Amino acid sequence: MTAMPASTARARSDHLVDIREVVDALDPQTAGAEMHAIIRELYPICRSITGEGLRRSLRVLQRVAPLTLHEVATGTAVFDWTVPREWNLTAARLSGPDGEVILDADRMNLHVLNYSAPFRGKVRLDELEKHLFSLPEQPSYIPYRTSYYKEDWGFCLSHDQRARLRPGEYEVLIDTSLTDGSLTYGELVLPGALTDEVLVSAHCCHPSLANDNLSGMVLAATLARLLGGVARRYTYRFLFVPGTIGSIAWLALNEEKARRIAHGLVVAGVGDAGRLTYKRSRRGDAEIDRAAIQVLAQSGQDYDVRDFTPYGYDERQYCSPGFDLAVGSLTRTPHGEYPEYHTSGDNLDLVRPDRLVDSLRRYLEVFEVLESNLTYVNLFPRGEPQLGKRGLYGSVGGGSHTAATQIAMLWVLNLSDGSHSLLDIAERSKMPFADLRRAAQALEAARLLRAKDRSG
Amino acid sequence: MTAMPASTARARSDHLVDIREVVDALDPQTAGAEMHAIIRELYPICRSITGEGLRRSLRVLQRVAPLTLHEVATGTAVFDWTVPREWNLTAARLSGPDGEVILDADRMNLHVLNYSAPFRGKVRLDELEKHLFSLPEQPSYIPYRTSYYKEDWGFCLSHDQRARLRPGEYEVLIDTSLTDGSLTYGELVLPGALTDEVLVSAHCCHPSLANDNLSGMVLAATLARLLGGVARRYTYRFLFVPGTIGSIAWLALNEEKARRIAHGLVVAGVGDAGRLTYKRSRRGDAEIDRAAIQVLAQSGQDYDVRDFTPYGYDERQYCSPGFDLAVGSLTRTPHGEYPEYHTSGDNLDLVRPDRLVDSLRRYLEVFEVLESNLTYVNLFPRGEPQLGKRGLYGSVGGGSHTAATQIAMLWVLNLSDGSHSLLDIAERSKMPFADLRRAAQALEAARLLRAKDRSG
Amino acid sequence: MTAMPASTARARSDHLVDIREVVDALDPQTAGAEMHAIIRELYPICRSITGEGLRRSLRVLQRVAPLTLHEVATGTAVFDWTVPREWNLTAARLSGPDGEVILDADRMNLHVLNYSAPFRGKVRLDELEKHLFSLPEQPSYIPYRTSYYKEDWGFCLSHDQRARLRPGEYEVLIDTSLTDGSLTYGELVLPGALTDEVLVSAHCCHPSLANDNLSGMVLAATLARLLGGVARRYTYRFLFVPGTIGSIAWLALNEEKARRIAHGLVVAGVGDAGRLTYKRSRRGDAEIDRAAIQVLAQSGQDYDVRDFTPYGYDERQYCSPGFDLAVGSLTRTPHGEYPEYHTSGDNLDLVRPDRLVDSLRRYLEVFEVLESNLTYVNLFPRGEPQLGKRGLYGSVGGGSHTAATQIAMLWVLNLSDGSHSLLDIAERSKMPFADLRRAAQALEAARLLRAKDRSG
Repeated sequence: MTAMPASTARARSDHLVDIREVVDALDPQTAGAEMHAIIRELYPICRSITGEGLRRSLRVLQRVAPLTLHEVATGTAVFDWTVPREWNLTAARLSGPDGEVILDADRMNLHVLNYSAPFRGKVRLDELEKHLFSLPEQPSYIPYRTSYYKEDWGFCLSHDQRARLRPGEYEVLIDTSLTDGSLTYGELVLPGALTDEVLVSAHCCHPSLANDNLSGMVLAATLARLLGGVARRYTYRFLFVPGTIGSIAWLALNEEKARRIAHGLVVAGVGDAGRLTYKRSRRGDAEIDRAAIQVLAQSGQDYDVRDFTPYGYDERQYCSPGFDLAVGSLTRTPHGEYPEYHTSGDNLDLVRPDRLVDSLRRYLEVFEVLESNLTYVNLFPRGEPQLGKRGLYGSVGGGSHTAATQIAMLWVLNLSDGSHSLLDIAERSKMPFADLRRAAQALEAARLLRAKDRSG
Repeated sequence: MTAMPASTARARSDHLVDIREVVDALDPQTAGAEMHAIIRELYPICRSITGEGLRRSLRVLQRVAPLTLHEVATGTAVFDWTVPREWNLTAARLSGPDGEVILDADRMNLHVLNYSAPFRGKVRLDELEKHLFSLPEQPSYIPYRTSYYKEDWGFCLSHDQRARLRPGEYEVLIDTSLTDGSLTYGELVLPGALTDEVLVSAHCCHPSLANDNLSGMVLAATLARLLGGVARRYTYRFLFVPGTIGSIAWLALNEEKARRIAHGLVVAGVGDAGRLTYKRSRRGDAEIDRAAIQVLAQSGQDYDVRDFTPYGYDERQYCSPGFDLAVGSLTRTPHGEYPEYHTSGDNLDLVRPDRLVDSLRRYLEVFEVLESNLTYVNLFPRGEPQLGKRGLYGSVGGGSHTAATQIAMLWVLNLSDGSHSLLDIAERSKMPFADLRRAAQALEAARLLRAKDRSG
Repeated sequence: MTAMPASTARARSDHLVDIREVVDALDPQTAGAEMHAIIRELYPICRSITGEGLRRSLRVLQRVAPLTLHEVATGTAVFDWTVPREWNLTAARLSGPDGEVILDADRMNLHVLNYSAPFRGKVRLDELEKHLFSLPEQPSYIPYRTSYYKEDWGFCLSHDQRARLRPGEYEVLIDTSLTDGSLTYGELVLPGALTDEVLVSAHCCHPSLANDNLSGMVLAATLARLLGGVARRYTYRFLFVPGTIGSIAWLALNEEKARRIAHGLVVAGVGDAGRLTYKRSRRGDAEIDRAAIQVLAQSGQDYDVRDFTPYGYDERQYCSPGFDLAVGSLTRTPHGEYPEYHTSGDNLDLVRPDRLVDSLRRYLEVFEVLESNLTYVNLFPRGEPQLGKRGLYGSVGGGSHTAATQIAMLWVLNLSDGSHSLLDIAERSKMPFADLRRAAQALEAARLLRAKDRSG
C-alpha cells in the first residue's frame, strides 16, 4: 500500500479544507479496503507492552501518518509504576511425547503467555497443566493471557486441543528475553489555532487480536492523516501506547501537556458488526460527551450510551481523579461483551471494512461538532430581524409549514444570546447540528450574527 | 349587543371583587353566546396588518373593553423593520372568459391575496395561474395567503374551483391601495397595586378566520372587561396588534414599558374543540409557565404542554433574546395542527361558544394564581401550632382520613418558611392551588401566618 | 423475659464491636420471639398521652434498654401547646336496659374514648348514640378514638354490636380522672465519638394497638440495647414519647439539643406483613434519606419510597420549618393504608416476629451506612495505583471478567477525590455499600487511601 491512498489524498493538499468536506469525500469502499489492508499487515506481529513487535507495528502506522516514536527506559518511575524490562520473543514451541510440535508461536502468537519468562526443559503433563490456559466454555478459541508483572511462563491453547494432550513428557521451548530496554509509544501532534487539545488515544499492545485493537490503531492513524489536511481550531494529539502502563507513562512524563487536553476519545474495538457505543467521561456531561451523543443521535442508526466506569481502556487513567480529563470512549461492541473478545476469535474476519469506515465517519463528525461548536451573538436581538428582506425567508406568508432551514435560523437567532453554543441549540431544538451550523453560517454572512470568540 | 352584558356586569361595580368570584360567576351559556356574537360581527371584515379593516375591528372591540387605538406612521423604523404602507381594499373581482364573476372579495375576503397590489387588466389563464393560490390536498378550502413585503397581486381559491377554470382571457380587478398611512394597534392598561405587569397579547391581522384569531381577540377583550372589576395586585396590559410587525412596533416604541412585563400570555386559537395547550416561555420554568401548567393540571381535562420554540405567534418577539420576557401562550389546538388552519375552513362553525368560555375561565384561573401566589411566613414554625384550639381541626382524633382542608393547612404551615410561594407548595403537595390559597387565608385570619411581602 | 436475651447479649461485652457484626449475629427466631413477647406484655395496658398506663409501659421497656423517665408538669407551655391534665382510667363500663354489661374497658381498653372525662349516669339510647363511635364499613372492628383537647365522654364499639343495641335506658360508668399531674416520656442517650446525633423516636401513647405502635416502641428499645454494644461514631438519642404533644414538649424543652440532631428516624408500624416503606425527610435528599434508600435498594426485597408529607407521625414536628431536621420515617405499611389501622384489628396477630426482626435489621443497616459513610482521599490520584504489586489484583491478565472486589476498589479509588463519600460512590456505581466499605478498608490498609476526616 502507498503512504497516501487516493481516497483521502486531497485532504493533504496545500489549502486546508473544512472537516465536513472530508466527511463528504469519504469513499466507504476504498477507505475500508485500505484500513483493512493495514490491519492484515499488522495482525501476525507479536506485540506486547514493550519490545520489537510493538516498535515494528508503530513503524507500519508511520506509513499512514507521520507519528514519532518515543522510548521510555526500563526502570523509569511513572507515578506508582515502574517501566518493566523489555520483552522479546524469539520462539515458543511445545512438543509432545512423540516429538511432534503441538504449539508454535510462529504460527499463532497467542499461544505464548504474553510476557512469558524464558524456559527450556522437559516437563510431565501434570506439571505442564499449571502453565496452560484454555477456555472450557469456548473450547475452540485460544485465549489471550498476559503476565506482565509476575515472572511466569505458559502457553495458551484451545480447550479442544488441551483435551487431546496425552500423558507423558513434553518439551518446552520458550525463547524469550526480559532485559533492560524501553517501552515504545507513538505520538503525533497536529497544531491548531488553539493550544487546547483534542486527544485520540489507542492501545497498541495486543498481539494477534484484530478488533481489539488493530482496528483502533488503524482508525486513529487514518484519522490523524485526514485531520492533517483540515483547517483546525483545536490542536490534535494522537497517542499510540501500550495499555495502562503506556498511558500512565505518558501522563507521568507529560503532566503539563495533559492539562491542555480539553476533549478526548479512547479508540478501540471499532471494526465489529455491533452498534456504536459511547462511554461517557468521568465528568459525565462534558462537551465531548455531548458532542459524541449528538452525533450518534443524528446518525440514524441504533446506538448505545454508557455512563463512566473505572474499568475498560485507558480512559481509566485519563479519568483518574488526579487528572479527571474530559475523555470518553467511542467503540462498537464494548470490551468483554462479544464472545470473541480476547481470544483467537477476534481475527481478521471479525473486522468489517464498512464498519471501520462508519466508525471513522463518526469520529470525524464528533470533531466537526467540536470544531464548529461556537457561541454566537445575535446582532439584532430585539424582536426577530427581518429575514425576508435579506432573501432568507419566503415572500408569500400564511402557509402552515416553515422550511427546516428557516426554523434552524430562527433557533439560532433566538438562542444566540451569548450563552448558548450551537451544541446547546442542537440539544434544545432537537435539530441536526449540521443544519444549525449551516444556518449560523448563513446568518453570519448576512451580518445578523457574529461568533462570540473565534479563538476560543 | 350591549357594551356590558349581564353575565359579567357585576365585575364593574364600584367595589372591586376577588378574581375567584368572577370565575365562579361565569355563566357558560350567556358568556359563550356574547363572545360568539362579537366574533360573528367581526368575521366579514377584511383585516390586514394595516388599514381600515383592522381599525374597524378594534373599534368593535372597544364596545367590549375601553381599549385605546394607536397609530404608527408608515416608514417608522421599528428595530430591523419598517412600518409598511397602509393597505386598503375597495374591491377584488375575477371575471371569466364569459364575463361571469368567478371570485369576489366582497363575498369572501380570503379570495384576495392579502396586501395585494392594485391591478386591473385582462390576462390569459396561463398568466393568471402564476397569481393563483389553492390547496391541492384540501381541495374544498380557500387558503389564506399574504404578500406583505413583496409587491404582488393574486387570488386565493379552492382547488376544486381552480380545476374548473377554462382556458381563455380573464378580467382581473384588484382595487386596493398601498399608501402612506399608519399601522393601528389597540392597548388597554388596568393599573394594579404593583407596577409589575401582566401582558395579554392578541394578533388582529387575519381576515375571515374565526379561530385564528377572532377567538383570541374577543377572549382578550372580554378578559380585559372582567379584570377591570377585579382587585388587582398586578397591572394588566392588553395589546391588540397585527402579528409580527405589530408586536415588534410596540416593543420598539415601548422598550422601557416592556421591561416591566413580569408575566405574559399570547392568546390565539381559543375557540376550537381541541384540548388546551400551553406553550412555555423561552425561560421554560417562569412563574407564568408554572401557573398555567398548575391550572391545566387541576382542570380535570386533558391538556398538553409544549416547550418553547421560536416559531408560532408573537411570543417569538416577546421572547427574542433582547427581551426574553416570561411570555407563554395558552391556546387550544396549536397553530398548523388542525386541518382548517389558515383556510376558509376556519369559519364561524369551528369556534364553539362553550370552548371560548372554557378558555376564558382558564385565563382567569392563571391570573388568579399569579395574583395570589404569595410567600407566607409561619409565625409558629417550631412544631405544629395547635389548630384544634382555634377551631381549625376536628376535636375527635384517631380516624384514618384527615380532611383535605386540614391537610392543606398542614402543607402551608410546613412549607411557609419564607422561601416557598403558594405555587411552590401546590407543586410539591400536588394539591389544588385554590385549596391552598383558602388554607393560607384561614391561617392568616387565625394569625398563624403572615404574607412575607404583600406588595411584591 | 430477662433484661439481656442471649441472642444479642454479646453486643454488651466490654469491647465494642462493629455494627456489621451485630447485624450478622442477629438470630431471626430468637430475636423475633423476644420482641413479640414484650409486645404481648405491653398490649393490655391502657396507654394515653399521659398517665399511669404510659408510665408502666416505659418501665417495661426499661428492662430492654436503660432509658430514663422524664415528667413534664401539667400546664407547662411547650411552644403553642400546653401540657394537658393527666388522665387515668379506673374503670369504664356500659350496662344495658336489662343491666347486663355491654362494654368493659377492663376487657378491651379501646372501648373507652381515650381521654374521656368522668361520667356516671343513666342515658336513653338516643342520647347515648351521640357518645358512641363505630365503623359502619368495618362492622366487626372497634375503632380507636381520642378526645384529648375537648372534654367529652364516649365509648367505641364494633358497628355489629352497636346495631344490636335496643332502645331503653343505659347505665354509663366512666371512672376516669383528669387532674394536674404530668406527661411522661423516656429517653436514652448513647454517646459516640461525635456530638452530632442520630435520633430514633417512637410514639408510645396508643392503647391496645400492636403494630401502631407497640412494634415501634419495642424495636426502638431493642435497637438501643444493641447499639449500646457498638463502637459508635455518632451519638444516638432514643425518645419514647406520646405522639405530637410528646415530641413538641421534648423539642420545646430541648431546643439546643435538637440542633445537634444530624439524622433521624421515626419508628412506627414495623411488624406487619407489608413491605418496608421509607418516607423522606422534609429536606428530601438528606444523608439519612439516601442511606435508608440505599439499604432498601440493596435488601433484595420489594420496598417503597415516599416523599415527605406534613402528616403522619412525629416527623411532622421534627420537620416543622423552625427545625427542619433531617428526620425520615422507616415503617412497613404506612399509617392508614392497612384496614386494621387504628382499630381492634391491629392486634397481636397482625405483628409477625420475623417482620419485626427484618425491620430491626434494616434500621441497623441504615446506621451502619451512617457510621461508615466517610469521604476518602486517594493518595495516588494520578493514574491508577498498581494494585497487583500490593496483592490486591490478579497477576494473570486478559480475562474478560474483573472480580467485584476489584471493581469496588477501582470505584473507590476513582471517586475518592475528597468530594465523594462512600454513599455517593454506592449511588453512582450501583454497587452494594458494604462491598465498597470493605474495598475502602482494604485500600486504607494498603495506604492507598485515607479518610478525609475521621472525626466528622
